[in-house]
Amino acid sequence: MPHKLNFAVVGGDERQVKLCELLAHDGHVVSAFALDKAEMSGVITSGCDTSELRNKYDCVILPVPVKSDAEYLNTPLSAYRYKADDILSLFPTGQIVVAGKVDNALFAKAGRNGIRIYDYLEREDFTVQSSVSTAEGAIEEAMKALDTTLNQKSCLIAGFGHIGKILAHYLDGLGVKVTASARKSGDIAWISAYGYNAVRTAEIKEHIADYDIIFNTIPHLIFTEAVLSRAKRNVFICDLASKPGGVDFAAARELGLKTVHALSIPGKYAPMSAAEAMRDTIYNILDEWGD
Amino acid sequence: MPHKLNFAVVGGDERQVKLCELLAHDGHVVSAFALDKAEMSGVITSGCDTSELRNKYDCVILPVPVKSDAEYLNTPLSAYRYKADDILSLFPTGQIVVAGKVDNALFAKAGRNGIRIYDYLEREDFTVQSSVSTAEGAIEEAMKALDTTLNQKSCLIAGFGHIGKILAHYLDGLGVKVTASARKSGDIAWISAYGYNAVRTAEIKEHIADYDIIFNTIPHLIFTEAVLSRAKRNVFICDLASKPGGVDFAAARELGLKTVHALSIPGKYAPMSAAEAMRDTIYNILDEWGD
Amino acid sequence: MPHKLNFAVVGGDERQVKLCELLAHDGHVVSAFALDKAEMSGVITSGCDTSELRNKYDCVILPVPVKSDAEYLNTPLSAYRYKADDILSLFPTGQIVVAGKVDNALFAKAGRNGIRIYDYLEREDFTVQSSVSTAEGAIEEAMKALDTTLNQKSCLIAGFGHIGKILAHYLDGLGVKVTASARKSGDIAWISAYGYNAVRTAEIKEHIADYDIIFNTIPHLIFTEAVLSRAKRNVFICDLASKPGGVDFAAARELGLKTVHALSIPGKYAPMSAAEAMRDTIYNILDEWGD
Amino acid sequence: MPHKLNFAVVGGDERQVKLCELLAHDGHVVSAFALDKAEMSGVITSGCDTSELRNKYDCVILPVPVKSDAEYLNTPLSAYRYKADDILSLFPTGQIVVAGKVDNALFAKAGRNGIRIYDYLEREDFTVQSSVSTAEGAIEEAMKALDTTLNQKSCLIAGFGHIGKILAHYLDGLGVKVTASARKSGDIAWISAYGYNAVRTAEIKEHIADYDIIFNTIPHLIFTEAVLSRAKRNVFICDLASKPGGVDFAAARELGLKTVHALSIPGKYAPMSAAEAMRDTIYNILDEWGD
Repeated sequence: MPHKLNFAVVGGDERQVKLCELLAHDGHVVSAFALDKAEMSGVITSGCDTSELRNKYDCVILPVPVKSDAEYLNTPLSAYRYKADDILSLFPTGQIVVAGKVDNALFAKAGRNGIRIYDYLEREDFTVQSSVSTAEGAIEEAMKALDTTLNQKSCLIAGFGHIGKILAHYLDGLGVKVTASARKSGDIAWISAYGYNAVRTAEIKEHIADYDIIFNTIPHLIFTEAVLSRAKRNVFICDLASKPGGVDFAAARELGLKTVHALSIPGKYAPMSAAEAMRDTIYNILDEWGD
Repeated sequence: MPHKLNFAVVGGDERQVKLCELLAHDGHVVSAFALDKAEMSGVITSGCDTSELRNKYDCVILPVPVKSDAEYLNTPLSAYRYKADDILSLFPTGQIVVAGKVDNALFAKAGRNGIRIYDYLEREDFTVQSSVSTAEGAIEEAMKALDTTLNQKSCLIAGFGHIGKILAHYLDGLGVKVTASARKSGDIAWISAYGYNAVRTAEIKEHIADYDIIFNTIPHLIFTEAVLSRAKRNVFICDLASKPGGVDFAAARELGLKTVHALSIPGKYAPMSAAEAMRDTIYNILDEWGD
Repeated sequence: MPHKLNFAVVGGDERQVKLCELLAHDGHVVSAFALDKAEMSGVITSGCDTSELRNKYDCVILPVPVKSDAEYLNTPLSAYRYKADDILSLFPTGQIVVAGKVDNALFAKAGRNGIRIYDYLEREDFTVQSSVSTAEGAIEEAMKALDTTLNQKSCLIAGFGHIGKILAHYLDGLGVKVTASARKSGDIAWISAYGYNAVRTAEIKEHIADYDIIFNTIPHLIFTEAVLSRAKRNVFICDLASKPGGVDFAAARELGLKTVHALSIPGKYAPMSAAEAMRDTIYNILDEWGD
Repeated sequence: MPHKLNFAVVGGDERQVKLCELLAHDGHVVSAFALDKAEMSGVITSGCDTSELRNKYDCVILPVPVKSDAEYLNTPLSAYRYKADDILSLFPTGQIVVAGKVDNALFAKAGRNGIRIYDYLEREDFTVQSSVSTAEGAIEEAMKALDTTLNQKSCLIAGFGHIGKILAHYLDGLGVKVTASARKSGDIAWISAYGYNAVRTAEIKEHIADYDIIFNTIPHLIFTEAVLSRAKRNVFICDLASKPGGVDFAAARELGLKTVHALSIPGKYAPMSAAEAMRDTIYNILDEWGD
């Protein structure tokens, strides 16, 4: 990113504010829209009139998630509300836009208007950086919840996707006995290659009594009552999968098991890293355009 | 520990209560003294009359720290107060006693009475287990204090003693860029052997601007105003050394640096692990007697 | 794999012999073909007449690689030669066959005959296990080639695919300063998440003077004369990419650089692990059929 | 080491030659004695007359080990032989001398002459750097000896001293299942803190059947016939303890176990690192004098 670029940043929460500051700090021109209730430091033109969005920017940055409901833009730090479609209609043809959790309606609207929308969540670079935050946040949750150390505890990570891979790496580094589960043979091989214990996800039931701590990353019901009933009485279960998650929480409560459903960790635990992940992803997108 | 032993547990805080429960859970006979305000589960004879301490036990367990001031036993969970000397006078000759932070007066008293006192803090097994708790607690502190992830941050650990060694191992496992400092050439060699960056403690001043996070473990004033004034503005400093610590906190405040003086971590963050460390150390002591 | 299966093992090298023994050891019925010069222990029916391949087996196992040239089966441990097509013609419809490096001609032949061929090399489980062998073999090569220890050396791994990921993990564990290169932003994020240094493959040229050891895993010419001319004089370069590799070896020789082109490591360094990878993959394939 | 120093290097093997080159490369004045059969590059005054040793040098460097027998200096790269006492008699009072494996006779002689001899082997910095070489060499030995990968193998390290600590760290990094043994409770606590499995050395016998690979670092007979007879038939045992080592090799041979007695690894596997360890230790010694 050698030269000075023009960014329009529209709506969003604290992460979006920090993003404005990071971009300004790198020497770019930043115009902030729908962030009128936020305080920002650095050279940022704030409180801009949305009609200015008719101009072409090097990149327009919409919120994560882009909408607060089916229709409206997600603008918690503005006194005003904007229909997402109306904002999109302002952009000139060819405008590059970045946003989070873009639905098909919005992609279609963009397609009809000749606008190029990138969704952070479809980007490997963004997903990995978010998974780092989630993995660290999960470890912090476990440290807070337990009256013991993690060291030498036997721990199951259900699922070996982005979060599972990074969480396994970090827990292993803390001297935890790590078992990771996967459905596919290829992932089982990866788990072994990294030196962890491997178990088939379908066979968790047979082994669950071995674990002191369980992190779930699978967005399906894995920890049913039948499975939970075989767990240690003092197990700690941290579900990292988005709602409804992979744990039967009612059954867990009934059984007296200690559980946490840890959601949206990156924004809560490490908002600055979340903003940095957004910045890095935007730079990568613009770089790839330049290639 | 194959057979059933007789333990007298006298005074102390929540850790001492958990210790009673752990010992009872292992099948031993546990008599609790000066813990009359504590609730305990398991087969423990609580509320015993101190005159019973004239009997011989396989081991008498005094608090950590053993005294609340120069004279009195540390009994926060009792309605009564006891002079440490008076309690010691009850024990029969040859009694094995374990306690924490035993002062010379108490060692001398024990010597005159033919009693064998072990201080947890002089035991490597206890110190290492406590250092695990301290290292994990320090990581939790940093995670809480920072609005970023630890991953890829540049981190200095001042001092490569028990806590420094374990903390370096864990932070390295979290993908942190670890530099550790030491005074002695031998420790510098150890730091390199483990794959970390090494710096002489006397040369921290020249390098301090490189670090995002600093953990101090040295119980001397290392981070003076002159050193702190060269640090990054957004550095986070966590002092783990017992009071007064190794950081000029007044100067740090003046400079606007974010600091935490994290004290007595094992008892606060992981009380169950603290009780387990006490139990393991007691078993080790009795085993060594048996050899 | 609870029950006794019928395997036909045809041709191949020492790994195939060990595979026969592993399968027999697991209690299966093993018939060996075109391995007449090999000595085998365990209950294996060796020296079978190829006409028996008209029978249906639970699985027929062909060599890795399956052919020695365009036409003939790879049978270095047999006194006889067989055309691959002729052997394939013997198999009954529906036969499951596993082989390595299957070319389109053979896949087509199988398709016409209603035979199901699996290629090990298209299986993630097999590839990961082979990459473990390659990574360990690469480390052994470096240890042999260098008159220093690896610890604290600055090392570049070019490429962050299967081998790159595992090699980075292992070298990091040895206290090596690991930098990995990748082309894609997502892989750069992975490299950072694991705690290594990241560099864009296109920017290796600017950084090559920093490295003591270089492992190449990219099957394109990355280390041209222009790049190599900037390297340290005493660098060690180990090329792990299959022929022609990613290093201009002639230029390296001219410059006096120490290089090794390490090929086919799994079979050479850890033939038993290679056979185990074959066995595990076959079991996984048969399990997936059963699902 | 800011300024130019005067070194006299006397006798020794290839490591001593490399040491001359390293010192010359750092800009020091190097006079080489009793190395007349060695070829050296760099600005070194070779083939000096031993009478010049009457001069005072910043440091005189004798061989590792200093003597080849009870009387003579260890000078394998010289056509001449020198009595150690005669050489020592030449040095002026106050001369700083560094050497390896100094016996009491030599220390006494030095004491009478007012000469200050340092023995590398009594220095923590040197011992740790040598242990890094030994640990890497041990891993190379195991890789060479085994027809499998190390990854996921179950491995015992007997003894948790310098070599045990570093070897455990490296093997863990390679995805090996590490168990380390120790006699003392403190070391058992360290082993757990680092995340390995711990076993009492006295209880190895009960667990030996679990291990695929065994490294011994204890200089006493631990692996007696009674212990070895319970090991896996295909175990690999690498004894790193100096002669006679800790393994009953005759019994192992009888039982058909694969063993290696790996001696003097640092000099053989990584002679340049051995020379660097000598250089670093000498610099540290001179620095400590300056303090």
